[in-house]
Amino acid sequence: MLKEITKRDFELFWPTFSAVVRACETYAYDPDLSVEQAYQLWCKMPLKTYVWVEDGQVLASYYIKANAMGPGSHVCNCGYMVAEQARGKGLARKLCEHSQLVARELGFKAMQFNCVVSSNQVAVQLWQKLGFDIVGTLPGAYRHPRLGYVDCYVMYKHLEVVS
Amino acid sequence: MLKEITKRDFELFWPTFSAVVRACETYAYDPDLSVEQAYQLWCKMPLKTYVWVEDGQVLASYYIKANAMGPGSHVCNCGYMVAEQARGKGLARKLCEHSQLVARELGFKAMQFNCVVSSNQVAVQLWQKLGFDIVGTLPGAYRHPRLGYVDCYVMYKHLEVVS
Repeated sequence: MLKEITKRDFELFWPTFSAVVRACETYAYDPDLSVEQAYQLWCKMPLKTYVWVEDGQVLASYYIKANAMGPGSHVCNCGYMVAEQARGKGLARKLCEHSQLVARELGFKAMQFNCVVSSNQVAVQLWQKLGFDIVGTLPGAYRHPRLGYVDCYVMYKHLEVVS
Repeated sequence: MLKEITKRDFELFWPTFSAVVRACETYAYDPDLSVEQAYQLWCKMPLKTYVWVEDGQVLASYYIKANAMGPGSHVCNCGYMVAEQARGKGLARKLCEHSQLVARELGFKAMQFNCVVSSNQVAVQLWQKLGFDIVGTLPGAYRHPRLGYVDCYVMYKHLEVVS
């Protein structure tokens, strides 16, 4: 079930969040973020944050926020995280589809991902399937613990047409 | 003369800052930012902010900050503003060259501009002359008051080699 996040939900999600950030393979967040800093970043700075809850377990979460202000405020940005034990079941797709509905409700006209790590092929391919284009390549913009400096993609989707 | 900004400098620079943001042609900032919000954004959130002062007038300013955290923290981001009466004299070039020196001193390996409005050809061409590549195009990501939705460029330069 998808619902808006509470502080308690985030605390339950923290082991996943922390593991994802410490792996340093997908997010450009400080791996040493405290739970309180992470809560600010993931739940307070965005416009809305949702969680996927099943049997009392928080299995996934995403946020949505404006990607820029003023003349850039019609473009939103989202981030998604899925708990390791819940991967491969289509949750990221569900979250991304939901986020596009929410984005349209909030009046956004496009969605932009600023930094999709190119070595994260599962994500790149999923976003492409869901209609996102690679509109930019940032050379060596991500320091991967095993692969060294890898490229990041900027991915973008117009939301005008309901898909 | 280039020097690090003080609160008083920013107050002197505010008419320029405010005019640039209200024009809605170059920055994705809220045009209704207060002077205090603008000070936070331009001078407190970045790592460093500089001003160009001549005869007691603040003619230009730029900030430098990390563009992302953790595995993305080797890429910096800068923003530049020049007062209308001081344009066409090479100040933006001076500021950008200085910012690249400061970036290297701070240990950054690349500089990224996230949202260069494509209709701002003076800026696009200057950044290209200074070695920045257009590495991405964000379709319609900027709402221009006269031109409607215009594209933005993501521009990027490696800083390893001293130029």
